[in-house]
Amino acid sequence: MISGANYIGSELSKKGDKQFNTFDPKLNLPTEWAFQEANEEEIMEAATLAKSAFVTYREFSGKRKAEFLRAIAEEIDNLGDALIEVYTQESGLPAGRAAGERGRTMGQLRAFADLLEEGSWVEASIDTAQPDRQPMPKVDIRKMLCPLGPIVVFGASNFPLAFSTAGGDTASALASGCPVIVKSHPMHAGTGEMVASAIIKAAQRTGMPNGVFSNLNSSGIEVGRQLVMHPAVKGVGFTGSIKGGTALYRLANERPEPIPVFAEMGSVNPIVVLPSALTENGDNWAKQYAGSIVLGAGQFCTNPGLILAMKSTALDAFISTLGKEISTLEPTCMLHPNIHSNYEKGKKELSAQATVDMVADYETAVSPNVGQQRVLTVNGANFLRNTKLHQEVFGPFSIVVRCADAQELEAILAKLEGQLTGTVLGNNTELAKYKSMVDTLQNKVGRIIFNGVPTGVEVCPSMQHGGPFPAATDSRFTSVGTGAIRRWVRPVSYQNWPSEYLPEALRNENPLGIMRVVDGIHTNNKI
Amino acid sequence: MISGANYIGSELSKKGDKQFNTFDPKLNLPTEWAFQEANEEEIMEAATLAKSAFVTYREFSGKRKAEFLRAIAEEIDNLGDALIEVYTQESGLPAGRAAGERGRTMGQLRAFADLLEEGSWVEASIDTAQPDRQPMPKVDIRKMLCPLGPIVVFGASNFPLAFSTAGGDTASALASGCPVIVKSHPMHAGTGEMVASAIIKAAQRTGMPNGVFSNLNSSGIEVGRQLVMHPAVKGVGFTGSIKGGTALYRLANERPEPIPVFAEMGSVNPIVVLPSALTENGDNWAKQYAGSIVLGAGQFCTNPGLILAMKSTALDAFISTLGKEISTLEPTCMLHPNIHSNYEKGKKELSAQATVDMVADYETAVSPNVGQQRVLTVNGANFLRNTKLHQEVFGPFSIVVRCADAQELEAILAKLEGQLTGTVLGNNTELAKYKSMVDTLQNKVGRIIFNGVPTGVEVCPSMQHGGPFPAATDSRFTSVGTGAIRRWVRPVSYQNWPSEYLPEALRNENPLGIMRVVDGIHTNNKI
Repeated sequence: MISGANYIGSELSKKGDKQFNTFDPKLNLPTEWAFQEANEEEIMEAATLAKSAFVTYREFSGKRKAEFLRAIAEEIDNLGDALIEVYTQESGLPAGRAAGERGRTMGQLRAFADLLEEGSWVEASIDTAQPDRQPMPKVDIRKMLCPLGPIVVFGASNFPLAFSTAGGDTASALASGCPVIVKSHPMHAGTGEMVASAIIKAAQRTGMPNGVFSNLNSSGIEVGRQLVMHPAVKGVGFTGSIKGGTALYRLANERPEPIPVFAEMGSVNPIVVLPSALTENGDNWAKQYAGSIVLGAGQFCTNPGLILAMKSTALDAFISTLGKEISTLEPTCMLHPNIHSNYEKGKKELSAQATVDMVADYETAVSPNVGQQRVLTVNGANFLRNTKLHQEVFGPFSIVVRCADAQELEAILAKLEGQLTGTVLGNNTELAKYKSMVDTLQNKVGRIIFNGVPTGVEVCPSMQHGGPFPAATDSRFTSVGTGAIRRWVRPVSYQNWPSEYLPEALRNENPLGIMRVVDGIHTNNKI
Repeated sequence: MISGANYIGSELSKKGDKQFNTFDPKLNLPTEWAFQEANEEEIMEAATLAKSAFVTYREFSGKRKAEFLRAIAEEIDNLGDALIEVYTQESGLPAGRAAGERGRTMGQLRAFADLLEEGSWVEASIDTAQPDRQPMPKVDIRKMLCPLGPIVVFGASNFPLAFSTAGGDTASALASGCPVIVKSHPMHAGTGEMVASAIIKAAQRTGMPNGVFSNLNSSGIEVGRQLVMHPAVKGVGFTGSIKGGTALYRLANERPEPIPVFAEMGSVNPIVVLPSALTENGDNWAKQYAGSIVLGAGQFCTNPGLILAMKSTALDAFISTLGKEISTLEPTCMLHPNIHSNYEKGKKELSAQATVDMVADYETAVSPNVGQQRVLTVNGANFLRNTKLHQEVFGPFSIVVRCADAQELEAILAKLEGQLTGTVLGNNTELAKYKSMVDTLQNKVGRIIFNGVPTGVEVCPSMQHGGPFPAATDSRFTSVGTGAIRRWVRPVSYQNWPSEYLPEALRNENPLGIMRVVDGIHTNNKI
C-alpha cells in the first residue's frame, strides 16, 4: 500500500539512491516502511511540471478548484482506517487524535471550497472611468487577487494531517490557484504518501493538470533547500522550529528573485493571570491549564509555556493546585525520539537555571519517548534578567513567573519576543484597570484570548495564526483559517480593459455575483 | 527658512559633524542650502521617540488620524510658492510639475483621510460563538488590522513630494497608526525639510504625540542602514533603484527580528503592439509613445522602456514615425548630475551592443544635465540572447524589438523579469487571438493596460503599483493607492473578548457603522 516512492505529479518515482524508514516511537523501532529520498532530477521534474500546470490551473474557476478540494477530502476519507493506522504508528499519537485531525483536514479543504464557491475572496475592486474629469480624465481600473505560482509546502512534524500533505498550507495554496510541491515530513512519510495518493486521485478525477501536486520524500535538508532555490517556485509555507523556519526564510531572500516564505514557528504563548482569576477561580484555572499544558504531550505551537501573575497567597494556592493537578495526568508518547530528546534537553537546561524552583514533575519510570511534564516557578526579577527562561521548550512544560507587581509583569511582556497568542484571565473591570498591560500583550501577539486556553485553534475567517517574529516570519499573514489564502496571491490591476475579456470577477455584469468594491462602495450589484 | 537641521520629533537638531548641500542641476551648481547629516545619537533619539509615540498613536481613532492627515495637506498648501521654488531648484523639474505633484501629494493625504473616516479598511471579521456546537463549542473570535510599529520611509529621487517626506509611503503608514521616520533624499533635502515642518506643525495642532514623525538628513547610506537595523523599527518603505532596494531588503531580513521592506524598484514596462494597432493607429501610437518616453525626462518608474511587435511594413512605419516624433521633442533637465551621468552611461552601453540599430537620437548641444532621448531597435532573436538589453535605463530611453512572430514575442515576455506594468495595444479580437501572449504578460506585471500608456499612475483603490521582483520586493502589496496601507498592518484576533473592551471596529453595536464580515456575510449591521 505504501510504495516509498515520490509523486512527481501522478507518477510514482524512485530515482534516488538514499532510503530512510519512518519510526514508531511507541515501539521505539523503525517502521516497516522505507522511503526513497527525492534526487535532484526528481526535484527539477516536479518544479518544471508545477510551472507548466500553473499556466492552466491559475485560470480555473472557483467552482472547478472547489470540486478538486472537495474530491481531495473525499479521497482522504476513502483511505479509511488504514490511514489512521499508519498515522498512529508513525507519530505515537492516539487514534482519537488521528481521527480528529483527519476531520479537521477535510474540514479545512471544504472551508476553502466554500470560500471559492462564494468567490468574494479575490477582493475585486473597480474604479470606473470618468472621461470628463478635470484636469485629466480618469481611466477605468479594476483589481483582483491572482495566484503567485508554484508553492513549496513543508510538512509539519506535529500535525501529520492538518499541517502537512493536504493541510492548511496546501489547501490554501491550491485554493488560490497555485500548484503545490510538498516536501513530506520524514517522521510521517507514510501518512504523507497515503494523503498524496488521495490528492493525485482527486486531481485525476476532477481533470486537474498533471503537476498541480507533487510529493517529495526527504530525511535531510537538501531536498527542501533545492526546492526553495528553484526559479519556478514562487512561495513557501512552513510550520516548525524557529531555526528551520528562519533558515528557509533567509535562503529564499538570497535567491536572485527573492520569494515570500511564510514560516509559523515558535511561541511560549504567555498567560497573564490577573488577581480576580486567582481569588475567584484559581482552582478551576489551575485544572484547565494543567490539561492544556499536557494536551498532546505539549506538542502544539499554542502550548501555554509561560504563566505570569502578581505575587499573592492566591497565586501560591494556584501554583500548588497546578502542581497537584499536573501530577495526576498520565504523560504520553512524543512524536519521535529526536523530539523527545530535545524536550528532555530543553527541560533540563531551564530547570538547571539558578533561582528556578520545581512546581511539579513527573518522573515515574515509563515507556520510551514519553514526554514527562514539568512546571517550574521563578520570580519576575530573575525571569527578566535571564532570557534563557524566555525560550520555548517544545513539550509539556511551563514556567510560572511570580511578579512583584503590575509594573514588573508589564516589563516582562514588553521584553518578550513576538508570540502566536497571549491570554488574559480576569474580569472585565481588570481589563480597564490593567489596560496598559493588556495593550502591551496585544502588541506582541497574533491572537489575544480572554478567559480561555490558547490550545485549540478554530479554523474560521476571523482566526489569526501568526504573529510578530519569531512567532512567524511575516505577521501580516495567517496560516490557519480562510485568510491563509492571502499568502499565495498578489493584486493585479487591469486598466482600460474591455469588460468581456476581463476575468469574470471584474466584469461589468458581475457574473459570479460576488461582493466587490465599486467606486468605493461595497456591493454585489452589476455595473 | 531652511535650517538644514534634522527633525527629531518636533525638535530641530544638528548634532552631527557632516554637512552637504543640495544641487541645482539647471545651474549645475550647489544650492545655498546646507544640511547637517544625522548622527548615531539622533537616529537613536528618533527611533526611541517613535516607539513611545506608537503606544498612544496606534490607539487613535480613524477620525483623529484623518484630522492629522488633512492638517498635513493644509500645512503643505500653506507653504505656498516657497515650496515650489525650492523644489524646482533642487530637482531641475518645471514649476508646473512641482505644482501638480504637490496636488497629488495633498490628494493622497486626503484619500487616506477619507479611508480612515469611512473605516472599513480595517477588514473587521467576526465569527460569533456557537456554545452548543458539537462535538466542541465554538468561541467568539473577531479579527481586524492593527499597525506594525514605527516605519522608516526613504525619500525617492524622482518624486520630491509625492513619494518622499509626506508622500504615499508616509501617508499610508501614518494612516495605519504607525509613526514614521523619513530618511530624507539628499537630492531634495530642502524640499524635504519644508514638508517635514508642515507635518510637525500639523502634528502639533492636532495633538499628535511627539515622535509620530521625524525627518533625518543623510547624503550616504549609513543613516538609512542604522535606521533599518534599529530594533524599534518594524517596517520600511522605499522607492528607488533595484540595487538600493534589494540591499535594504536583505539587510532587514538579516536583523535578529526580520522586518518587512516594501521596495518599489525598477521596471522596463513592456509594451506589446499587436498588428491592428500598427495598421490602424500606428501614427497616433507613435506620437503618444514619443511623449510618454520623454515625459519628465523619462524619470518615471512606469516609463515605457521596451516596445515589442511582430515584423511588418506597418511596424517599419511605426518605428519611423516614433523616431521622427521623438526628435521633435525638447529634451529636459534631469534631477541631478549623478542621474544624468548614469543615464548617459546606460544609454551608451546599450547602444554599443552588437546588432542594435539607432532609431532616433537627440544630440544637439544643450544645457548641462539635460537627458537627451534615444530609441534603439533590435530584432527579437538578438534581444532574447542578450539580457543586457533587458535592463532598465532610467531616463528618456526605449528599445523597439522587431519579433519574427508571435511565438518569439511570447518567448521574450516569458524571459523578462517582473514588471510594474505591461501594456497591450490592439483590438478586442486580438485579445482573444493572442490570449496566451497576454496571459504571459499578465503573469509578469502588477498592472496590465489596454490601449494606453503606462505613465500616469492613478491614485485610487483599484491601483496596483508593484509587481513580481525586481519591480518590487513583495508583489503582494502596492505602494500607490489606498491599498498601500495594507503594508503596515497585521491582523490581530480577539478571542472571547467582552464587546465593550474591544476596539470599536469589532464591537457588537458596530459604532463606526463600517462594513464587516459577520459569520461569513458582508454587512454593516450591528450584532
